[in-house]
Amino acid sequence: MPLSLRKLLIPLLCTLLLPLSLLAQSQPPAHPLEALKTQEYWTVYDVLRDSGKMETDTVTHSVLLHEPDKNKVLAWKPGDAVFREAEVILLRKGITIEALVDIANRKLESWRERKDVQAPVTRDEFRELEEVMKKDPRVIEALKKRGITDLAPVDCFADPFSYFALPELDGHRIMMGGCSYRHGVYVGWSRDIEGLQVKVDAAEKKVLQVIDESITPVSQAPVNYQDLETTPRPGTTPISVSQPLGPSFQVKGTEVAWQNWRFRFRLDPRLGAIINLAGIQDGDRFRSVLYEGSMSELYVPYMDPALGWANRVFIDAGEFYATGQILKPLRAEVDCPSNAVYFDSLAWADHGFPAIHSQVACLFESYSGDPAWRHFEDQQLSGSGARVLVLRTAAVVGNYDYVLDWRFERDGNLRVTVGATGIVETKAVKAKDAADSPGHSTAGAPDEFGHFVDKNTVGVNHDHFFSFRLDVDVDGVNNSFMAMRLVKLKLGNPMRKSIWVVEPSIAKNEKDAMMDIHLDRPSMWHFINPNVKGPLGYPTGYELMPGTTAASLLDPDDGPQKVGAFSTHQLWVTPNKQDERFASGVYPTQSKGDDGLAVWTKSNRPIENTDIVAWYTLGFHHVTRAEDWPVMPVMWHDFVLRPFDFFPRNPVLALPPAP
Amino acid sequence: MPLSLRKLLIPLLCTLLLPLSLLAQSQPPAHPLEALKTQEYWTVYDVLRDSGKMETDTVTHSVLLHEPDKNKVLAWKPGDAVFREAEVILLRKGITIEALVDIANRKLESWRERKDVQAPVTRDEFRELEEVMKKDPRVIEALKKRGITDLAPVDCFADPFSYFALPELDGHRIMMGGCSYRHGVYVGWSRDIEGLQVKVDAAEKKVLQVIDESITPVSQAPVNYQDLETTPRPGTTPISVSQPLGPSFQVKGTEVAWQNWRFRFRLDPRLGAIINLAGIQDGDRFRSVLYEGSMSELYVPYMDPALGWANRVFIDAGEFYATGQILKPLRAEVDCPSNAVYFDSLAWADHGFPAIHSQVACLFESYSGDPAWRHFEDQQLSGSGARVLVLRTAAVVGNYDYVLDWRFERDGNLRVTVGATGIVETKAVKAKDAADSPGHSTAGAPDEFGHFVDKNTVGVNHDHFFSFRLDVDVDGVNNSFMAMRLVKLKLGNPMRKSIWVVEPSIAKNEKDAMMDIHLDRPSMWHFINPNVKGPLGYPTGYELMPGTTAASLLDPDDGPQKVGAFSTHQLWVTPNKQDERFASGVYPTQSKGDDGLAVWTKSNRPIENTDIVAWYTLGFHHVTRAEDWPVMPVMWHDFVLRPFDFFPRNPVLALPPAP
Repeated sequence: MPLSLRKLLIPLLCTLLLPLSLLAQSQPPAHPLEALKTQEYWTVYDVLRDSGKMETDTVTHSVLLHEPDKNKVLAWKPGDAVFREAEVILLRKGITIEALVDIANRKLESWRERKDVQAPVTRDEFRELEEVMKKDPRVIEALKKRGITDLAPVDCFADPFSYFALPELDGHRIMMGGCSYRHGVYVGWSRDIEGLQVKVDAAEKKVLQVIDESITPVSQAPVNYQDLETTPRPGTTPISVSQPLGPSFQVKGTEVAWQNWRFRFRLDPRLGAIINLAGIQDGDRFRSVLYEGSMSELYVPYMDPALGWANRVFIDAGEFYATGQILKPLRAEVDCPSNAVYFDSLAWADHGFPAIHSQVACLFESYSGDPAWRHFEDQQLSGSGARVLVLRTAAVVGNYDYVLDWRFERDGNLRVTVGATGIVETKAVKAKDAADSPGHSTAGAPDEFGHFVDKNTVGVNHDHFFSFRLDVDVDGVNNSFMAMRLVKLKLGNPMRKSIWVVEPSIAKNEKDAMMDIHLDRPSMWHFINPNVKGPLGYPTGYELMPGTTAASLLDPDDGPQKVGAFSTHQLWVTPNKQDERFASGVYPTQSKGDDGLAVWTKSNRPIENTDIVAWYTLGFHHVTRAEDWPVMPVMWHDFVLRPFDFFPRNPVLALPPAP
Repeated sequence: MPLSLRKLLIPLLCTLLLPLSLLAQSQPPAHPLEALKTQEYWTVYDVLRDSGKMETDTVTHSVLLHEPDKNKVLAWKPGDAVFREAEVILLRKGITIEALVDIANRKLESWRERKDVQAPVTRDEFRELEEVMKKDPRVIEALKKRGITDLAPVDCFADPFSYFALPELDGHRIMMGGCSYRHGVYVGWSRDIEGLQVKVDAAEKKVLQVIDESITPVSQAPVNYQDLETTPRPGTTPISVSQPLGPSFQVKGTEVAWQNWRFRFRLDPRLGAIINLAGIQDGDRFRSVLYEGSMSELYVPYMDPALGWANRVFIDAGEFYATGQILKPLRAEVDCPSNAVYFDSLAWADHGFPAIHSQVACLFESYSGDPAWRHFEDQQLSGSGARVLVLRTAAVVGNYDYVLDWRFERDGNLRVTVGATGIVETKAVKAKDAADSPGHSTAGAPDEFGHFVDKNTVGVNHDHFFSFRLDVDVDGVNNSFMAMRLVKLKLGNPMRKSIWVVEPSIAKNEKDAMMDIHLDRPSMWHFINPNVKGPLGYPTGYELMPGTTAASLLDPDDGPQKVGAFSTHQLWVTPNKQDERFASGVYPTQSKGDDGLAVWTKSNRPIENTDIVAWYTLGFHHVTRAEDWPVMPVMWHDFVLRPFDFFPRNPVLALPPAP
């Protein structure tokens, strides 16, 4: 095909991609790990409707693919039947119900009432509770005391508790929140009415208590981020990335081939992008690296004991995914470059009906101008440019936006990147700024628990912790975790008194593999296959290299920390169990911390030479600054899985210089 | 100008850039901080020649710009006289001489013999010592014992000691090394003849001792990185970055303007790129951030007590810059993208004559497809793409290549990035691989002090530590260092038992500012101007945010560690002193550790509200792997200086969506 014709055809093909991808959603699944399809959502709906168990007030809160048994997936071949199940969470009169539906056989497999857990909140609940709150005479009175009589610009919201915060939660579905007054702005963030809190029974749909503690004027900080005075940067010339012959990757359904990488992905309403069966095509051999990788949970505790703030602890995925799936759309040319291809996803909406979400993932090759390797020797320069394949999504939970990347590199590295942006949560205070305040951050100061980001507006201190679940399968299912500790060795050498040596140790049980980062006691974290030797006699392996991260400073026996307990260690390793997928448990709402990583690992199960899962905690403490307001610049964090004695030598060495 | 004409003109302009930049080197300096010019090198040469102090055997080892007094530079205006001095290091009969030359007045200001220090090694010394070694009958005999009688493919080398390793060094210029046999390869790395060490007197040019300990066959590992069997990646389509209207930055001499950033840079033979007078153009006001920033030193200790390895400790800049300046050329399209502009530099060569080094720095705008900020709200998506200005150089010290970036970001961040690539140092061992070995990394195993990277070839464990010197001048010269410690606070709140709060403290003296990273005792490192308040009443500031880094594990009283003592802490803060520029001292060769950061700070000088300098240690431990062989993929590390209450709000918010 002549080049000129190709150039014409490729944009045309790209235009066709969207309808094709939509079409694909309503076809039957081609692989057991594909996301639920349109017809499957309807089958689940039909099976439940016909089960005779649904009452008129039974509400569907969640419909997720019940991930099939790993052994069955690994044994599956194209042409085999595709076994499919959906796990459904329903709520009736405050009682959570779990149902499991066999889709292929159109059969309700189980139906179980759970009085010990709370289903995740839905958008409908939010809406209903807002209505109840705004009609409550005590709320109306409290607003009136603040001079607010026009209720139209008032938004009220009740948030679930992400932990068992109060004894009265027992056996009840309780939420607590307040109202905001967004007169004069197009976005409600930062307009909270401080000092007024409303406790509601979400099952009974009634206000339990209105606490009106003190009056603080609503913040007037200019939050309208698109309306701000612009500061043009004259002379900015355009910069563009182009691939005139199209991308180098091939996508077949949700199976991706790029360079020597092969992987599948699906877009899950709770966890976002889930990578499956990722590995390296090594000649005619496929070598597995990661059976599954995904974000597992997010834990965001705020650090202010005030009314309406002490309870601000969010387990973002598990608590909120049912208000509309966790992934939100990407904007072309802002979130992804012009050479990106986009993907839609399906999630359930009202009644469990399927709903399409457009453009929630993008896939692109990135070249930032960096070398992959280089060497200068005898006046000669060798090297090649670095090209990366990026699978990008954005999780948006209220005010915060998280850009989540899986970056496949040509040297075998798999980098996971988290970019935090969006709007920080602020609190209105009476003091204008830090000059008014008796002393920066001191006890009793208006910024004791945060930092002014604008007049009368304090960004409240908080943490972000992400748990990434990585079912590593290096060259096969059975792997071991090996900590390579760097230990000082005293020498009697006339020239040297000390060096460090490596002390490798294979973790036998889960407690051996709870790893914390200490600069004075460094260690490397290797996932090896003790049954497969590389060419130099070492087991083949992948190393998990942490980036900048943080550990939780909260008391281990503090309610929030029990649910976000994964933040205690930077790495955990568990035996793979099908029902251990969520680091803070299936139901973090009102949780006593009786499910999740810290609980499973208490029995200290064996993890040597078996099917293991790594859990990496990526975290950061956030003290806000003026520059984070009204929308913060992206703050990036990452970690890497990199081959360690997996390839016989540097795999990018033999590539041509051009990226 | 019509677009079509512009397109024609711009490549033409780019072609013209190189000669223009060459021309600039021979013009008089336009600013006191410019690198030494061609005519200035000749003036230094003439002044020394005419001084009557140069004997025929006085050798010029180093000619560097003597950086002018900061106050004078800050007071300087275009049109003022440009005061210029050069500091020269000479060597005669093993005695180091320091000379200071006033260039403008063509005057020798000082001439001082230093018997207590060692000048850095030169290429000529290497060459002469190689000749001496290869002629030594004991060396010839030792090679013969190994079956090597053809001396043509034998390279011998003697390395200086980076520390006071042996009592006999006192008053002598001693080096120690060995030989390699590069028959069959085009690159000599990995061909060392183990077990044979030669000690030489570099002043006397004679062999002092030949130690022939044991015979190990020379490694036959395929090091010829360009000859390796290629693994084509079929279907790789081209990817390109383009700026059809040219770059957005302006370069006038070595003064750069880009967006709201302004800075100068020079390419120094010892330190590489030095950033000066970096700051933000804020309307009609220039606001300083960094008076000067540069890499200050590199410390690379190896971790093997064997003969020929115990002494492998490199203070890469201070020891080796005189063998040819530290920066080496960049390869277009490999090291920098196609939209990059390149810069040459001048350094002294034989006799102190100037020599041009082509294409040792590049400047380009990078867009990798990432957002600068984004937010999704009410089904609306806002944000903009991220564009970065990169000033890139590559320091090459023997086997290792370090890609060094200063990355100016539009949100006010200044990111320093180090990419380590090149060839790892290996040791030949008798055992073939790890299967032969009694136990991986155990005492007595062939890989006790390293890791096999190829057959009979062990990559030896080592560290890389970089000290970056950052003369922060946030909104003026006088700054303070404020540690913001995050400290747990126990609560009596019914909902929460604990939070963390910020405890800021201003460092009064140097010891208050020696910072170590502990995840359980986190702190933020702020450089503030206590005399300038931002709009919210806080002092304006910049925060230094570390990336992944490491601390040295060696004994503080170990010889190498005394010289590389900057690696003990991740951050140091000192009062700015003109003669404190090199973290391991001016003369690390054979140093007893009596100069450098750890020594200067012993007196615990005051650092509050004065002209301060931050020293950041970026480090990593390196256990090699098969994938690092024969040239390792780039391993990136970074840290960031980011505005903290410097701008009134997010400075990238008002930018158009296009990057």
